[in-house]
Amino acid sequence: MLIRVASAACLLLSASAFAQDDALISEDAANTARELMQRGLESDTGYEVVRSLTTEVGPRLGGSEQEARARDWAVQMFTELGFENVRIEPFDMPYWDRGAIRASIVSPFPQPLYASALGGSAASPQGGIEGEFVFFDSFQDLYDFDGRLDGRIAYVNDRMVRLQNGGGYNTANEKRRFAWLEAEARGALGVMIRSVGTDSRRFPHTGMMSRPQPNTIETGRHSPIVVDYIESEYPDYAETGISSSIPAVALSAPDADQIERIHDTGETIIVSLSVVAGWRGQRQSGNVIAEIPGRELPDEIVLIGAHLDSWDEATGAVDDGAGVGIVTGAAHLISQLPRAPRRTIRVVLFGAEEVGLLGAFAYARQNAAETGNIVMASESDFGAGPVLSLTSGASEEGTLFMDEVQGIIAPLGILRGDRASRGGGPDIIPLAAQGVPVFRLMQDGTDYFDLHHTPDDTFDKIDPDDFAQNVAAWAAVVWLAADAEIEFRMQDE
Amino acid sequence: MLIRVASAACLLLSASAFAQDDALISEDAANTARELMQRGLESDTGYEVVRSLTTEVGPRLGGSEQEARARDWAVQMFTELGFENVRIEPFDMPYWDRGAIRASIVSPFPQPLYASALGGSAASPQGGIEGEFVFFDSFQDLYDFDGRLDGRIAYVNDRMVRLQNGGGYNTANEKRRFAWLEAEARGALGVMIRSVGTDSRRFPHTGMMSRPQPNTIETGRHSPIVVDYIESEYPDYAETGISSSIPAVALSAPDADQIERIHDTGETIIVSLSVVAGWRGQRQSGNVIAEIPGRELPDEIVLIGAHLDSWDEATGAVDDGAGVGIVTGAAHLISQLPRAPRRTIRVVLFGAEEVGLLGAFAYARQNAAETGNIVMASESDFGAGPVLSLTSGASEEGTLFMDEVQGIIAPLGILRGDRASRGGGPDIIPLAAQGVPVFRLMQDGTDYFDLHHTPDDTFDKIDPDDFAQNVAAWAAVVWLAADAEIEFRMQDE
Repeated sequence: MLIRVASAACLLLSASAFAQDDALISEDAANTARELMQRGLESDTGYEVVRSLTTEVGPRLGGSEQEARARDWAVQMFTELGFENVRIEPFDMPYWDRGAIRASIVSPFPQPLYASALGGSAASPQGGIEGEFVFFDSFQDLYDFDGRLDGRIAYVNDRMVRLQNGGGYNTANEKRRFAWLEAEARGALGVMIRSVGTDSRRFPHTGMMSRPQPNTIETGRHSPIVVDYIESEYPDYAETGISSSIPAVALSAPDADQIERIHDTGETIIVSLSVVAGWRGQRQSGNVIAEIPGRELPDEIVLIGAHLDSWDEATGAVDDGAGVGIVTGAAHLISQLPRAPRRTIRVVLFGAEEVGLLGAFAYARQNAAETGNIVMASESDFGAGPVLSLTSGASEEGTLFMDEVQGIIAPLGILRGDRASRGGGPDIIPLAAQGVPVFRLMQDGTDYFDLHHTPDDTFDKIDPDDFAQNVAAWAAVVWLAADAEIEFRMQDE
Repeated sequence: MLIRVASAACLLLSASAFAQDDALISEDAANTARELMQRGLESDTGYEVVRSLTTEVGPRLGGSEQEARARDWAVQMFTELGFENVRIEPFDMPYWDRGAIRASIVSPFPQPLYASALGGSAASPQGGIEGEFVFFDSFQDLYDFDGRLDGRIAYVNDRMVRLQNGGGYNTANEKRRFAWLEAEARGALGVMIRSVGTDSRRFPHTGMMSRPQPNTIETGRHSPIVVDYIESEYPDYAETGISSSIPAVALSAPDADQIERIHDTGETIIVSLSVVAGWRGQRQSGNVIAEIPGRELPDEIVLIGAHLDSWDEATGAVDDGAGVGIVTGAAHLISQLPRAPRRTIRVVLFGAEEVGLLGAFAYARQNAAETGNIVMASESDFGAGPVLSLTSGASEEGTLFMDEVQGIIAPLGILRGDRASRGGGPDIIPLAAQGVPVFRLMQDGTDYFDLHHTPDDTFDKIDPDDFAQNVAAWAAVVWLAADAEIEFRMQDE
């Protein structure tokens, strides 16, 4: 990071050398962006926001009392930082609770297993289940299996590939999302998976189960959850919760290795599992919103977000305390400028993301009337690794504008990425599906899935320098987009 | 490791260049040592021993049924590898069981804590305890505190320093060993410590509590546990178990950081703690012994060991499955030579080390009559990091001999360390105290205390190349010591 900081220190000096007459970004706006970058690298406001959230609230599962405390915390935090129009937009949701778990190998080599229930898992029957493991190398093998699994437990072993952009996640995640369904259909007592993660620590990775679209079953593969959302604006399971009828759990990687070693001996593996988990009725969640009103075009909104909820086993530092701190820190820097940008900047901290993007759908539904006013949207929800590239999905003029934006933030080590992206982050999906233009500051996610959805997602894992680079980049991009008069929206949408 | 392997491949070629007429080690013996090193780098027998132990037995707490299974495993393993005089020497011991734990911050910011009971901890009263934290920066601060702690919980926060030789352990460990005593004496409801470890993972580090020698209290500092053992051949707590009357637990480093951050806000911290732990009466443990009988001096013994037990929360791969594999693998290589060494090599897998070196004291007591026949002893019990140096504590001639030994193993990257050491490893303490000469192959322990006594001490953490370097070094040193006729014992002892 030292090199980046040093480069940034020269930002103002080198700025005018690159000015062009036909630029979409004025020299004034660009200089302000450079000043914001400089301040972003120096400020610790965003970092202190994460510290406060993870320390004073801690874990905050969607629908829990702790998530309600997080909303109160956010209102107070935004108010103290001087944001305007601070408010909570509540919504109701079904609440799933993890409860306790006990898992162990009964035979051939008795020993405990470190496991965690997947979101939506049913409880085991009183006294737990005990059954023989049927070992599947991959989710595809389970999917293709045309036998029965009655009285036995399906186990799916495939590993996630570590990629810098996190691209191994969707493939590895098929087993977390859909293995319960395949196991259940074949009469299994339960289902266990190797955790979806890239580490070799004794932490299971939890995460929500899902339900595929019926039409995609015909293609022989389940579609990723993202398709569900785009095609069905408000998924039905938000009303009732996705629920397996059998317990579904993830094992830590070292435990999965152990299972694999025992499986390699040719011995039959018998496992005992007791899970106390289930849906506990309707609870309230909510999105917390704060604004910097625009000075000329207050009805036009640049929406930036992160999700306020976390999984229950950790304090949610990289997922997504970091995002909360990054977008808040960036917006706060902009609010400290002598004059506000032309357009309004709206910060949305979404509730109940982990359990099904419920806050995102509630936001889109509750604010449907003004979706057309959102000129650009993005979420920070990929940890605190450094930003590597800027992607966007906007009109032709908007794309050229973002090319110039990248030129301004390039000294932070940020390249231009995809210029026709649909991705603005998970909670932006319902808005993007309705034609809202998006950008994304793509981060280095090499280590992200070491921590993701584990108890180890804690504040100490955030590197302050990488974090500051994020704040600097966000402040610049958001400022430029909000101060512009560019039409980012594509005309045919 | 590639460089080391390459060097070793040249061992035989370069050997004769350094031969001297007055050498204590014959050219023949040295060449055999070099051949053993070569084979050690290539063999996977020792590594497979660790795989088998950690997979097929798993966790094996001293006195548990699983430790009994480990003894059966060891007898079978030694027999299959062709060792002679394979036997178990049983002993009785008090058995402490961890049971369940639940810890959480009640106020000001309610959230769960990841904690583990320390060995010897009492259970909490029915329903648990709840009390205000009294925060001590260090064990010394608690020790010096002249107030009362009635109705409150003492918390000791000091961090362990990461050193390559593990030298931060003894200092950091004072709080694990003795904080219970200081807290109890001041009327505390319970005591919590920051884990003794160097990682920042959400795993608490367990470990046994201790009791200081009364005379050392007068000096103002507690003496390390090692002194207790040397001064009292069989510690009284082996009969009854060290037992606090209050619960004593360790928090993971991220939880300790959290406590520190909350403490920094100035708020009073109230914690709730429920511990189900305690002494469960007498159980059987045992040492497992195997030999390669000497061809000329079978009554003279080179004793090499490791401990067979582990803590209950992990499969004990680096502590001390690695040691079991290293000494077994090395001895097995020697047993495959065309002729046995002059002296007997005795491999001892000690029971119940973690809970108080109980196997070590039982061995010394049960074999007291032949202690004088042990010409040299050493234990491998510091993980699977590469060996960096050879230390020894022996007669003048023995020391010169070990200088030559180091010259032979130097291509493995091993320097000469302390030439007047008393250390042969934890389970060698009772023998060393009776004048048995010792050596030690000192390993790189930079990362050892990241895993030590946590659930994360699993087989995947062992690097096969580093492990092989250990086997190579042990095979050479043990061969040379066992084939020599050198008197290692100092004459005045």
